[in-house]
Amino acid sequence: MTRDKADLFEEDIRSIPAAPENAVPPEDLEDLALGDDYALNPAYVDMVIDAADRGDAERLRELVGALRSEDVADLMGFLTADYREEIIPCLDSETLAEVLSELDDNLREEVLDTVHPTALAKALEELDSDDAADVVDDLEGEKRAQVLAAMDETDRAAVEASLAYEDETAGRLMQREVLAAPQFWTVGQTIDHVRSAGDELPELFFDIYIVDPAYRPIGAAPISQLLRAKRATTLAEIMEPVTEITVDMDQEEVAYIFDKYHLISAPVIDAGGRLVGQITVDDIVGVIQEESEEDILALAGVSDAGRDAGVWDVARSRLPWLVVNTLTAALAASVIGAFQAEIGKLLTLAILMPVVASLGGNAGTQTLAVAVRALASRELNASNTVRIVLREMTVGLVNGGVLAAIMGVATYIFFRDPMLCLTIALALVINLFVASLAGILVPLALDRLERDPAVSSSVFVTFVTDFTGFLSFLGLAALILL
Amino acid sequence: MTRDKADLFEEDIRSIPAAPENAVPPEDLEDLALGDDYALNPAYVDMVIDAADRGDAERLRELVGALRSEDVADLMGFLTADYREEIIPCLDSETLAEVLSELDDNLREEVLDTVHPTALAKALEELDSDDAADVVDDLEGEKRAQVLAAMDETDRAAVEASLAYEDETAGRLMQREVLAAPQFWTVGQTIDHVRSAGDELPELFFDIYIVDPAYRPIGAAPISQLLRAKRATTLAEIMEPVTEITVDMDQEEVAYIFDKYHLISAPVIDAGGRLVGQITVDDIVGVIQEESEEDILALAGVSDAGRDAGVWDVARSRLPWLVVNTLTAALAASVIGAFQAEIGKLLTLAILMPVVASLGGNAGTQTLAVAVRALASRELNASNTVRIVLREMTVGLVNGGVLAAIMGVATYIFFRDPMLCLTIALALVINLFVASLAGILVPLALDRLERDPAVSSSVFVTFVTDFTGFLSFLGLAALILL
Repeated sequence: MTRDKADLFEEDIRSIPAAPENAVPPEDLEDLALGDDYALNPAYVDMVIDAADRGDAERLRELVGALRSEDVADLMGFLTADYREEIIPCLDSETLAEVLSELDDNLREEVLDTVHPTALAKALEELDSDDAADVVDDLEGEKRAQVLAAMDETDRAAVEASLAYEDETAGRLMQREVLAAPQFWTVGQTIDHVRSAGDELPELFFDIYIVDPAYRPIGAAPISQLLRAKRATTLAEIMEPVTEITVDMDQEEVAYIFDKYHLISAPVIDAGGRLVGQITVDDIVGVIQEESEEDILALAGVSDAGRDAGVWDVARSRLPWLVVNTLTAALAASVIGAFQAEIGKLLTLAILMPVVASLGGNAGTQTLAVAVRALASRELNASNTVRIVLREMTVGLVNGGVLAAIMGVATYIFFRDPMLCLTIALALVINLFVASLAGILVPLALDRLERDPAVSSSVFVTFVTDFTGFLSFLGLAALILL
Repeated sequence: MTRDKADLFEEDIRSIPAAPENAVPPEDLEDLALGDDYALNPAYVDMVIDAADRGDAERLRELVGALRSEDVADLMGFLTADYREEIIPCLDSETLAEVLSELDDNLREEVLDTVHPTALAKALEELDSDDAADVVDDLEGEKRAQVLAAMDETDRAAVEASLAYEDETAGRLMQREVLAAPQFWTVGQTIDHVRSAGDELPELFFDIYIVDPAYRPIGAAPISQLLRAKRATTLAEIMEPVTEITVDMDQEEVAYIFDKYHLISAPVIDAGGRLVGQITVDDIVGVIQEESEEDILALAGVSDAGRDAGVWDVARSRLPWLVVNTLTAALAASVIGAFQAEIGKLLTLAILMPVVASLGGNAGTQTLAVAVRALASRELNASNTVRIVLREMTVGLVNGGVLAAIMGVATYIFFRDPMLCLTIALALVINLFVASLAGILVPLALDRLERDPAVSSSVFVTFVTDFTGFLSFLGLAALILL
């Protein structure tokens, strides 16, 4: 196809007035929007881009209107900034609020910049206090003041109270709206109260907390039990023990507790033990995703630049560990420098030394991943540390032995030098033993120092295995071969 | 201290009749058992071990009795098999059932071996159908038949129906007990039905599903809305749209949908669209933990041997990728072999070549981790693949440039050879570019082939960066320097 023909062909496509799309009746749009797996359909994203390109605001409104807020947020992530700016005006106040609370941080900051403070204030009033605080937290100084000033007084107070707690704590995660009652209330009385209380209650709730006169939670009843019990039953009769969360608890710990005890909601108490809010499991699902994502990225030595970050932000999110790695790699290489003379005598050493280092690095990373996971799920603590460390050491020796046998035979086939085989075999056993040890001890040490064991351990373990790999192989070669 | 004295000292300790422990009144045991973060206290584990060592069954029963089932399961993980066997008889039927459903697979199999089929059948009857099926699935042929035969007929039928679905599908996750009603029912009528239905209902429920005459879900109402509405309101008035899960959907997809739409429960439908069960979010939390754990381990090239696996099982769980890595490392090393003559002429090449390979490996792993995460959260799909791949290529060039500058300067300081600086700088730019490209294309390709992008991509990317690192550096050296 010549260039002219190709252009003509493109022109042809553009000249078709988007007929197949307009042919889709609105009620079918929702089916078209999502695949069977509820992920946004790439074809739908293209339809949105197409409508925006044509400046067809009505069509755009129709397409976006067929989506749930979560899918609009999702759509935003697949578009560039220009398209996002065209979509914002298509959203009503409630949808805008929900979309804002769903967006990734970097996208959210960008979108927040384009929305007027008054419109933002109105939108935020639609959210639960925890979600609204989350959004306000991303606003810069002056705009934040403007938005807060434009908000309804009660809502502003709730947001400010929420922001008073540190980021990533239970205080930030909780919503202040809870359903609480004294233990002498009957089921009937409680249901009547719920019917009349209306707006003061959280939008969704799963448990009613039973409190003492000082407003300290002493138990809880799932509302399904409330429905099931006779109206005359007292709450004291159906109440179950509660698992309390303190307001300053780290969100990772909150997630651990929810996961361990299969909680749906839990009361949050202040330092005096008084009920100040509740955390529900739907917020925890997000936290768990976030924390495990952090672990994966931290182990790979990269911070999250965000889905739609630009080249510079992404590059910057990866450089720190690469620079540290430059240093550690140079240090490990200095070991090779010390054995230059030996390599000069037997060039085969230069070929085989990276194999010893690489296998050690892999074995170390394996142990490290298992250890980080076990620490995160509290499966590794003072009760079993010694046992697990001993097991890792043995595993290192066993796998070192197996790889020594494999590489020993391979080396013999290629180089026909029994002493070279012995050298690489011994070096592998040493390096895999050290790799296992470093893979378990480094995260354990970081954990003891109350640092995140996933962060920085990877680069350190790899340094240890590179260093040991070169030193053991070249050192043994100097002793045995030369 | 002499050896005799030390023995004497130990004797002294043993002769104290465990007074400090017996002094703790039972009601305080629970506080002692768990730390502030609800993780099991190592001191408590020691108390259990101590009681078991003394053969003090009563004390053991007391200690274990103060724990919730989840904590007993946790305790099991910190003990060796002998101690576990002593604890099993201390558990009543309900606790045993709950502990079994909490235990890791390998521990569970071991514990199942020690419990009599009849006792097991009785325990399993206490569980919801999904949890019971999960346990039965771990039983071997003959014992499974014995246990099923000893179970109550309804429970057995439920377990067998659940086991008919494939592992890790919605059918396995769901519980068959649901609360469903036609849309013309009033709130009052529904509550009365719940009060009288009793045992047929799930133990906990959060939504009532509204079904058409063919038992297809057409909507749902959270039970907090049910409590809030007037008795005369019909379900049709308060019903909201539902997100349906098909019975054969993979659990990872189910988790994605729950996370995306913040669901608390969702109806499960069969191929004909009929309501067959429900999945609740507490089961999903477990799935999310499991899937993210799998990703972390897969990226490190290790499978989960389980918390209490023996040395051989752990060694075997790591060997496969290590063996593959032996092969890939040997292949990469063969590149070095081809340049033996060049290394012989300039030994500095042997020192610097691992630095180029190592930095490439790290950059590739970074890109890989980000890509795997983005694929898992559906943030990377056909709509933005081209954009993201182009971004990664640019990031590779940018970071390659930065590292080239750093290593270039460092090389000049140490070796005072401008052409060597140029060689390593160019090699780094090439290798970081290739690393970024491999880091994004390998998981994308695996995903297209409907394989898990976390499995095996790591070893492949590292191979590419090792190979390219050696080839580009030594190749350029041959061209520029020699």
